[in-house]
Amino acid sequence: MDRRTFLKTVPMLTVLAGTASSFAEDLKTITLVKPQTDGGKSVLAALKERRTNRNISAEKLPPQTLSNLLWAAFGVNREKGPFGGPGRTAASASNSQEIDLYVALPEGVYLYEAIPHRLTPVIAGDFRRRSGRRSAARAPVNIFYVVDIAKYTKAPFQEPGLKDSEIQKSYYYVATGLIAQNVYLFAASQGLAAHFHNCDKRNTPNEFKLRPEQRVLFSQTVGYPA
Amino acid sequence: MDRRTFLKTVPMLTVLAGTASSFAEDLKTITLVKPQTDGGKSVLAALKERRTNRNISAEKLPPQTLSNLLWAAFGVNREKGPFGGPGRTAASASNSQEIDLYVALPEGVYLYEAIPHRLTPVIAGDFRRRSGRRSAARAPVNIFYVVDIAKYTKAPFQEPGLKDSEIQKSYYYVATGLIAQNVYLFAASQGLAAHFHNCDKRNTPNEFKLRPEQRVLFSQTVGYPA
Repeated sequence: MDRRTFLKTVPMLTVLAGTASSFAEDLKTITLVKPQTDGGKSVLAALKERRTNRNISAEKLPPQTLSNLLWAAFGVNREKGPFGGPGRTAASASNSQEIDLYVALPEGVYLYEAIPHRLTPVIAGDFRRRSGRRSAARAPVNIFYVVDIAKYTKAPFQEPGLKDSEIQKSYYYVATGLIAQNVYLFAASQGLAAHFHNCDKRNTPNEFKLRPEQRVLFSQTVGYPA
Repeated sequence: MDRRTFLKTVPMLTVLAGTASSFAEDLKTITLVKPQTDGGKSVLAALKERRTNRNISAEKLPPQTLSNLLWAAFGVNREKGPFGGPGRTAASASNSQEIDLYVALPEGVYLYEAIPHRLTPVIAGDFRRRSGRRSAARAPVNIFYVVDIAKYTKAPFQEPGLKDSEIQKSYYYVATGLIAQNVYLFAASQGLAAHFHNCDKRNTPNEFKLRPEQRVLFSQTVGYPA
C-alpha cells in the first residue's frame, strides 16, 4: 500500500474504530486512589528542573502517581472555592472551572472528574496518537485540554471594546496554562517528563463525543524520561 | 467635585503624571539578589494551599523574596533551552519567550530582565492602581503580563483553518497562564497571597511606553496575606 492509498484508508479505519468503540463495555470507571498532598521536590527546586522533555518512555505510571498527577493538574484542594463550589488547584474566571481534562491511556480515553477524583470512560481504544506522533503516541498519559463554553454562566465577562467570545478565549487559554504548569511542576518534582503541545483538533471532537460548546485546545504528554 | 467631573479630569491628570514621570531620573535599576532554588513547601503541599487571595497587606517583600518571586515566575533556570537561547521556568511556543513582566512597585514600574535577573526602570510613580482597586493598589508587587508579538519569529505557527493572529493568541494566553501558575505556587509555597485578574489596558500601553507590537493582557497581585 503506497502512502496515498494508506491516507485514503485512514478515515474509514477511524469510522470503524469509532463504531466499535461505542460498544466499549470493557472500559470501566477508574477510581483513583487518594492523592498524596506532600512529598517530592520543593516548588523552587522543581522550578529549577522545569523543562519541556519530549523523550518519554512507554512505561506506565503507578496508580498513586497517576492519581497525584491528575489531582495536581486540576484536582479539588478545598471544599469551598470562590463564587461557590469546590476550590481547585488552578484558578478560573469567576471559578467557572471551564476546562475539562480528557485523559488518553493505552486502553481508552477517560474524563477526569475532580470531585469524586475518578476517570470516567469516554471511548475505548488507543487514541494517544491524537496527541502527537512518536513519543506522545506511546507515552503512558496524554491529557487533552477541552473547554466547555457552557460553563461560563456565573459572570457577564464584559470588557470595553472586546467581544464576549474574545474575552472567553483569553480566559480559557489562560486557564489551560495554569493547569498545564501544575502538570509541568508536578512532573519536575517527581522526576517525570512532560511536554505541552498542539494536538489533533479535527478527529477528537467526534471521537471524544464532545458537545458543540466544547473545544479541544491543546494536549500534554507525561511519563518517565526515556 | 461630583463623579462626572472627576472622571473628566482623570485623562488630564494621567497626561501630567506621564510627563512628569518621563523625567524619572531618580528611578534606578534594581539588581536582584541571586534567587534561591530550594526551600519552602513541596509542589504537592503548595498545590494543597493554592488559592486566590485578594486580601493582601501593604507590607513590602524582602529583597530575597522579590528576587525568588520573579525568578520563579519566568526566570532563567538553565543555560540552554529548546530552539536556542536560555531555558526559562515556563514554556513558550518554540521558546519564543513572548511574555514580558512589567512589575509595579510603590516607587515605579520596572521591566523584569531575566538573563541579568534585574528590574530596569520603565516609569517612576505609583502605578499599582492600574492593576486594580483596593488591595491591589496598595499591595507591594503587581506583575503586568505584556505580550510582544514581535518575538514570534522562530516558527511559522501554522494550523489548518486558523488565522495566524488566532494561533498567536492561543499561544500567548497559555504562556501567561504558565507563568501565572508559577507565581501562584511560589506564593503558596512561601505563605504569600496572590491574585490573578484583569487590569487597566487603556492607560498602561502609553504609561509603560509600549511599542505597537506589545499588548497588556492581565495582571497579578502578590504580597503578604492581610
